[in-house]
Amino acid sequence: MEHHEPVGGRRRTAASVPDLVSRAREGQPRAVARLISLVEDASPLLREVMAALAPHAGTARIVGITGSPGVGKSTTTNALVTELRRTGRRVGVLAVDPSSPFSGGALLGDRIRMQEHALDPEVYIRSMASRGHLGGLSWSTPQALRVLDAAGCDVILVETVGVGQSEVEIAGLADTTMVLLAPGMGDGVQAAKAGILEIGDLYVVNKADRDGADQVRRDLRGMLGLAERREGAWKPPIVPTIAQTGQGVDDVVAELERHWAWLDASGEQQARRTRRARDEIEAIAVTALRARWGDVHGRSELDTLAVAVVDGATDPYAAADELLAAFAD
Amino acid sequence: MEHHEPVGGRRRTAASVPDLVSRAREGQPRAVARLISLVEDASPLLREVMAALAPHAGTARIVGITGSPGVGKSTTTNALVTELRRTGRRVGVLAVDPSSPFSGGALLGDRIRMQEHALDPEVYIRSMASRGHLGGLSWSTPQALRVLDAAGCDVILVETVGVGQSEVEIAGLADTTMVLLAPGMGDGVQAAKAGILEIGDLYVVNKADRDGADQVRRDLRGMLGLAERREGAWKPPIVPTIAQTGQGVDDVVAELERHWAWLDASGEQQARRTRRARDEIEAIAVTALRARWGDVHGRSELDTLAVAVVDGATDPYAAADELLAAFAD
Repeated sequence: MEHHEPVGGRRRTAASVPDLVSRAREGQPRAVARLISLVEDASPLLREVMAALAPHAGTARIVGITGSPGVGKSTTTNALVTELRRTGRRVGVLAVDPSSPFSGGALLGDRIRMQEHALDPEVYIRSMASRGHLGGLSWSTPQALRVLDAAGCDVILVETVGVGQSEVEIAGLADTTMVLLAPGMGDGVQAAKAGILEIGDLYVVNKADRDGADQVRRDLRGMLGLAERREGAWKPPIVPTIAQTGQGVDDVVAELERHWAWLDASGEQQARRTRRARDEIEAIAVTALRARWGDVHGRSELDTLAVAVVDGATDPYAAADELLAAFAD
Repeated sequence: MEHHEPVGGRRRTAASVPDLVSRAREGQPRAVARLISLVEDASPLLREVMAALAPHAGTARIVGITGSPGVGKSTTTNALVTELRRTGRRVGVLAVDPSSPFSGGALLGDRIRMQEHALDPEVYIRSMASRGHLGGLSWSTPQALRVLDAAGCDVILVETVGVGQSEVEIAGLADTTMVLLAPGMGDGVQAAKAGILEIGDLYVVNKADRDGADQVRRDLRGMLGLAERREGAWKPPIVPTIAQTGQGVDDVVAELERHWAWLDASGEQQARRTRRARDEIEAIAVTALRARWGDVHGRSELDTLAVAVVDGATDPYAAADELLAAFAD
């Protein structure tokens, strides 16, 4: 399916990678979609794609959007796209929330679901599979971000479900992590206590017209106030919104811009990009090593060593030494 | 503090590792505590400790206990220790829940908090630091489990907080993952929907005398009933308890025993031990590699490569190749 386009029944040979990249940079959504498919499917062309993208990536602001199901993440994402477009920015959306109406499909057909933006060539929407119900991000998320970045997206919104793994992982990938809460969720403040207070750069209290919204804001303000922050550190703002009507979404964008200015001025933007690149290189290297470990001397060296540890014939440290020695051969 | 004991003001030279291991196996809590400290502090003796433990570990049943704050994890853990002791088993407890009354301290002083079992030489209680508020397990958790296992614990209870990372990680470490719920928590069923249905081998509905407990059981039964299971697969039971009075805790132990029998009969026990050993070896090998990557040619090769990726001078795949090549030199 990736190697020809069905439009008009006309068959077309696969475009070369440099051609795809230049078309993506010109703003052709179909080329962007093809490139993401290539990285997502771990195509043999993956390395060539990444090499061709390298000189062009590194300017997008990556915004992670997380929160429990029901707080209005998709509506907020949609309203944010509208507002960011109003400011003239090219916008990418990666939906890794299995409950998002944007996610579920694998190809550009998803765009149809986001009616309002479906025909806007300056908006790329893409869903990605998560790693199971606990919501871990797909291994190819950093690569997909790189495609959207190189394609000239000024802002990339990554919508994740706020449970388990993905909210931890998104904080590692994003420049700005936005945590959504809403009144009447019951678990909102509980979740906040449990961990999201460490990851949010920006808190949005959505459904601000509903009973209890003020209480959520007060609770949140109280808890954020208790956090110790270094001199000059970013103090996460709390923004009330009614995403359904778009109310307050301009304030969210204003706070995003303020955060980006702080990231630049503090050197944190460069630090986050470097940390991300570090994590990405390391993950690729470890994946390559794991593939080799599973296949040294024609069978799984690692499995053999694991059985020896279970049998008490060796210990995990000695086994790790053997594994590394086998690899260095 | 680790190299002499304050008892009676008498200084003592550090015991040898083989001596510590044999004293731990004889059931001396102080030797067990010393060994756990050695692995937790990544002592230079760590490798010697692990090698000395290897022939003796591999028989304990590891039970992960997870659930939201407030469901009664610590009370249940305490009641389970009582019941398991009644059946004559030696019991270890690792508390990695920052909200647990068992955790917080670093040394054996914790035992005092668990008054009922403080003087029982067949019960080892140990708290471990978690990796931050999202509750990831400490890197040394598998090693600490190995100490308790080699010290002859028949059952090791690992109490973790049921948010974020730790509930995912405990499912990877445990033979049996026990998920606690309670009525009136609001987020109980929500949490259940979000992911715990994938990890539980045994569900405990605590505070079973309270309003709403039956509803929690019904909801849970309904959701578990929807899960597709292979022929012969384990069907997680739901056990109501009132941990405060001990009611139902004997049923929990009976279900644990039934699960252990199933693990043995199905071959899953061996498979889980092997998978754990595999993960442990791999984690140690990757940690060793990371240390080298951070220190090749006298400076951080990885940092240099990360900056090159950020600058667009190279891409992450080419950088990973360079990293592995530098290591193989």
